[in-house]
Amino acid sequence: MTKFSKIALPVALCALPVMGLAEEGPTPGVNPSTDTVFILNSLLFLVGGFLVFFMAAGFAMLEAGLVRGKNVTMQLTKNMALFGLAAIFYYLIGYNLMYPLGTWSVEGILSGVWGPGVLEAVGISAEDADDYSYASTGSDFFFQLMFCAATASIVSGTVAERIKLWPFLIFTVILTAIIYPLTASWTWGGGFVGEAGFSDFAGSTIVHSVGGWAALTGAIILGPRIGKYKDGRTIPMPGSNLPLATLGTFILWLGWFGFNGGSQLAMGSVGDVADVSRIFSNTNAAAAGGAVAALILSQIMFKKPDLTMVLNGALAGLVSITAEPLAPSLGLATIIGMVGGVIVVFAVPMLDKLKIDDVVGAIPVHLIAGIWGTLAVVLSNGDATIGKQIYGIVVIGGATIVLSAIVWFILKATMGIRVSEEDEINGLDMAELGMEAYPEFSKG
Amino acid sequence: MTKFSKIALPVALCALPVMGLAEEGPTPGVNPSTDTVFILNSLLFLVGGFLVFFMAAGFAMLEAGLVRGKNVTMQLTKNMALFGLAAIFYYLIGYNLMYPLGTWSVEGILSGVWGPGVLEAVGISAEDADDYSYASTGSDFFFQLMFCAATASIVSGTVAERIKLWPFLIFTVILTAIIYPLTASWTWGGGFVGEAGFSDFAGSTIVHSVGGWAALTGAIILGPRIGKYKDGRTIPMPGSNLPLATLGTFILWLGWFGFNGGSQLAMGSVGDVADVSRIFSNTNAAAAGGAVAALILSQIMFKKPDLTMVLNGALAGLVSITAEPLAPSLGLATIIGMVGGVIVVFAVPMLDKLKIDDVVGAIPVHLIAGIWGTLAVVLSNGDATIGKQIYGIVVIGGATIVLSAIVWFILKATMGIRVSEEDEINGLDMAELGMEAYPEFSKG
Amino acid sequence: MTKFSKIALPVALCALPVMGLAEEGPTPGVNPSTDTVFILNSLLFLVGGFLVFFMAAGFAMLEAGLVRGKNVTMQLTKNMALFGLAAIFYYLIGYNLMYPLGTWSVEGILSGVWGPGVLEAVGISAEDADDYSYASTGSDFFFQLMFCAATASIVSGTVAERIKLWPFLIFTVILTAIIYPLTASWTWGGGFVGEAGFSDFAGSTIVHSVGGWAALTGAIILGPRIGKYKDGRTIPMPGSNLPLATLGTFILWLGWFGFNGGSQLAMGSVGDVADVSRIFSNTNAAAAGGAVAALILSQIMFKKPDLTMVLNGALAGLVSITAEPLAPSLGLATIIGMVGGVIVVFAVPMLDKLKIDDVVGAIPVHLIAGIWGTLAVVLSNGDATIGKQIYGIVVIGGATIVLSAIVWFILKATMGIRVSEEDEINGLDMAELGMEAYPEFSKG
Repeated sequence: MTKFSKIALPVALCALPVMGLAEEGPTPGVNPSTDTVFILNSLLFLVGGFLVFFMAAGFAMLEAGLVRGKNVTMQLTKNMALFGLAAIFYYLIGYNLMYPLGTWSVEGILSGVWGPGVLEAVGISAEDADDYSYASTGSDFFFQLMFCAATASIVSGTVAERIKLWPFLIFTVILTAIIYPLTASWTWGGGFVGEAGFSDFAGSTIVHSVGGWAALTGAIILGPRIGKYKDGRTIPMPGSNLPLATLGTFILWLGWFGFNGGSQLAMGSVGDVADVSRIFSNTNAAAAGGAVAALILSQIMFKKPDLTMVLNGALAGLVSITAEPLAPSLGLATIIGMVGGVIVVFAVPMLDKLKIDDVVGAIPVHLIAGIWGTLAVVLSNGDATIGKQIYGIVVIGGATIVLSAIVWFILKATMGIRVSEEDEINGLDMAELGMEAYPEFSKG
Repeated sequence: MTKFSKIALPVALCALPVMGLAEEGPTPGVNPSTDTVFILNSLLFLVGGFLVFFMAAGFAMLEAGLVRGKNVTMQLTKNMALFGLAAIFYYLIGYNLMYPLGTWSVEGILSGVWGPGVLEAVGISAEDADDYSYASTGSDFFFQLMFCAATASIVSGTVAERIKLWPFLIFTVILTAIIYPLTASWTWGGGFVGEAGFSDFAGSTIVHSVGGWAALTGAIILGPRIGKYKDGRTIPMPGSNLPLATLGTFILWLGWFGFNGGSQLAMGSVGDVADVSRIFSNTNAAAAGGAVAALILSQIMFKKPDLTMVLNGALAGLVSITAEPLAPSLGLATIIGMVGGVIVVFAVPMLDKLKIDDVVGAIPVHLIAGIWGTLAVVLSNGDATIGKQIYGIVVIGGATIVLSAIVWFILKATMGIRVSEEDEINGLDMAELGMEAYPEFSKG
Repeated sequence: MTKFSKIALPVALCALPVMGLAEEGPTPGVNPSTDTVFILNSLLFLVGGFLVFFMAAGFAMLEAGLVRGKNVTMQLTKNMALFGLAAIFYYLIGYNLMYPLGTWSVEGILSGVWGPGVLEAVGISAEDADDYSYASTGSDFFFQLMFCAATASIVSGTVAERIKLWPFLIFTVILTAIIYPLTASWTWGGGFVGEAGFSDFAGSTIVHSVGGWAALTGAIILGPRIGKYKDGRTIPMPGSNLPLATLGTFILWLGWFGFNGGSQLAMGSVGDVADVSRIFSNTNAAAAGGAVAALILSQIMFKKPDLTMVLNGALAGLVSITAEPLAPSLGLATIIGMVGGVIVVFAVPMLDKLKIDDVVGAIPVHLIAGIWGTLAVVLSNGDATIGKQIYGIVVIGGATIVLSAIVWFILKATMGIRVSEEDEINGLDMAELGMEAYPEFSKG
């Protein structure tokens, strides 16, 4: 045992009389009671859930830092609004669609609005409501909701600086109410992709690639920003506030402990808490690997280290480990993350060559590293095969592309999705919102 | 049960041999032991407490983002200083005033300074100090302190950009040492308002409205900023850094899970953790409702969505659900929050019409939505009546107005509370502190 | 008991039927089971660990706010990269060096890379791997890693604005792989300093002073920034973004609850959780004391309160209480923190007189307040003597100075550690990275 405790123990003992506490040591050889397990599982969801909630702030800061100053207020508005809409529509439709309560009727889906529908234990009918083997439904809902919102946050960065506010928000509603819950249910909701053996622990494909595919579809249908690609060259449009982008990355990294650790779905046994601990360590290792790989590679390739590559490298490392954060050793987790970091450094210019304008780099980070992470499951998880993994990637990706494209095209045909050329050049903040993010700082 | 675990389980099992852990499953049918309950209750206070602590950063960022650039350093200084003073004076006086240890003597109140006074279990005399039915006093103190500090944080935003530093800090000392603990003790400390049946779960009135009344009294006595109201018109004075304001809102939203969830005061049973989970979900739903309502309403009323309204809408949703975050369904929680968001959009211009200059919108958010939230308790909590709720609002509000006004007037008469006209125009940062927040960014 | 619960209880009860939960109350008189203790201890490390992780973001924001605008991107890059490298090298070398698994062979040290070495319980051989008396190794590793990374974060602020990126990162690697683990093992790893009775609960000396000594050595060998000391005067070089610095301070304050609270190393008994609670409260009290003392003293000495002094005062208060956050009363903790705040206000100009250029004030905060905090242990911990404390300070400090100086000199002799005069004047962002932090804001 670490000698850390050699210091702590005498201090604790000398403090005890002051506290008036009598200690007799733990009761030996007894597993936690069923109630304790239920409490600890629920606690894992609550703590994991608030960490994943905070990722919404991370996305907002990352994106606000990486767009140009004239579009910052709009990016903040989109991030705040998309989270609010995700919370409402995942509640109204998505959650029941993903984990259906017996019936698939419209009444069943909508029953949660006024009644106690979503407060029953997940998948448990009313008469079984005293089954304490899992966790409280409130904690499960809270945790699951945050995953849905994260999916939507991924999209907003890619399509930034030229999409209209309201069509974007309508897309968010459909993504969080239907597309994500539907495709996620195929694996996590007891559906056919999971039955086929597809393995995606915390959602490299189910969350990140789905967000990435929706973003990619949107970016292609929207087209690039004015002036981004000119005479075969890519014109850099640097982010306006790199400290914000760095803060956002750190917040996302923090939130990922909840994202992956909470996906263990249990903390009420020695084995489960040890697994959650491994997941925390592996998640951190992969992020570190991604950041360092992108740092070194950007030094080698561009002769100068690139902070935005380092930030996206860390995030790509996190996405890469998300499909299997438990089974790898720390060394393998670091390497899986490093490959994610390498992917970012190569994929960002590649997308530009294809004239796909991804403002914050979300497609390399969430889609491409997400695919890599899903495939990498086979490196440590004996149950996974490359075939089953590809099956899941293709089915979920294909469905997301088709559904997203339909929605984007309908929005384009009806209300239009792109701001006018003049508004785009002047910036969305003044054109659509009439409010600058930094009204007092003059432009350089 | 969610199929999520279908993936997690085999992975966990295959990892177990590596870990050398033997699992036999939970002990059936045994409730948590008394010690486990004590530990889990204390843990709820610690986690809830650090989340509410972080709200101090949220307020600081929100306010630093919403004041003009020339007053940012001062706003940061006030927020950091008020938290430090709240911590010291709530410890020295407030905590014992709120939860008196048997006697009300000056010795009793001050006993905590050097002696172990505040380390005994709350309300328990030394001989009963091994009563483990609640939680550790240290965790209770930690949690309660953060509520007191939050009350003070509310005031600083409203009176920003024209109040002198030291009078503001003296007001903070009296608010956190006496006004808040006194009025809070009337409900939470076993006092007559609570006895009369007033119901305020986590403090829509006891924390937020008290802060709001103190702020309103201060704003009226201070008067509006120079140039704010001119020829019957309200001159916009836009915030200098909207990403900071958005970050602050997200941090406050995060902290609110601890604010409301921790106010369950227990997590050591299946029922308690299920309640904490419902509170987390409802708190989130109300914030989402407030943000979305303010977004839509500002689009309708002003033709352009207004980010600051969306931010304050989310906060108003949070304040609105704070008086009763447990009993409502998710749908009702969303609607209670939405009404909070609507209140903000109407109340901000209304205050301007009254020439009450509230720099960050704290009065609509904390006071008016706080009153709404306190009344809304009757929608879901059968024990509450509209009469009892109004009684609490009036008694606590009236006392806060009177006490605050006395303190503000004494400060005004003795040392003055407002900076000179010249200092206000030049900005408090250079005038009072000699330090700019952004010294290198030239002004637009 | 606080009457808070008088409100919560009926609400909880009335909610229970809706939830379908049956409650019978806790099982009396039973201590937590061994498994529950293991789970709760591990949970303490996980929650403490993610809080300390977030301190990396705190350091990054603090430093990005306190350097000049032309060096911000570099400071962010260093902070992100140093954390990634610390994670990798503490894993590869440091952790096994600090808590050796039986053998000190190179094979043993490196065994963790691919094998399950670091996944065994700390200090427990494979055959004892089902000893559940402590916590999961994954959680211990996660927690310990964050301390190592914090040590490296301290250095980056002091040597900012003139050190080259890669030599700094190489120093970080050696600090986190060898210097910190080695010197820390002398107390926490069962070494001779701990055996001699040196007491440092959470690391005022072992973490903060070690970081501070490494920073001081670096600052002296590097020399001051160009133009900092001219004709016997100190030229102020104000930080570019004080809201960021304030945010960083709040984040560090938040993280410190995990830093000190987690160092209790146990939460599975009534006594342990009560101790963790006391630590949370004392940690907060010391930070508050430091902030308020620096505020008042800077008002008295400079006639104007100084925000950066207040921020560093809070941090110095935190460092001061870190060596013994458990034993002091709240009053003593506040005073220990206040002395820390006073130290900062005097030490910052003193260092300038010595022409030691510490960009962010890390030496006063982490080194000098760290020494004070280590000595202050004798005020409340009966086992500590001033002689034993000085012994630890001198041995650990001396070793850190010698080892750091060797590394800095080797780096200086081989690759050089300082950027060219031209690059320093133009700023490291454009010279070394080609990327501005705020490209759109024109310079004042």
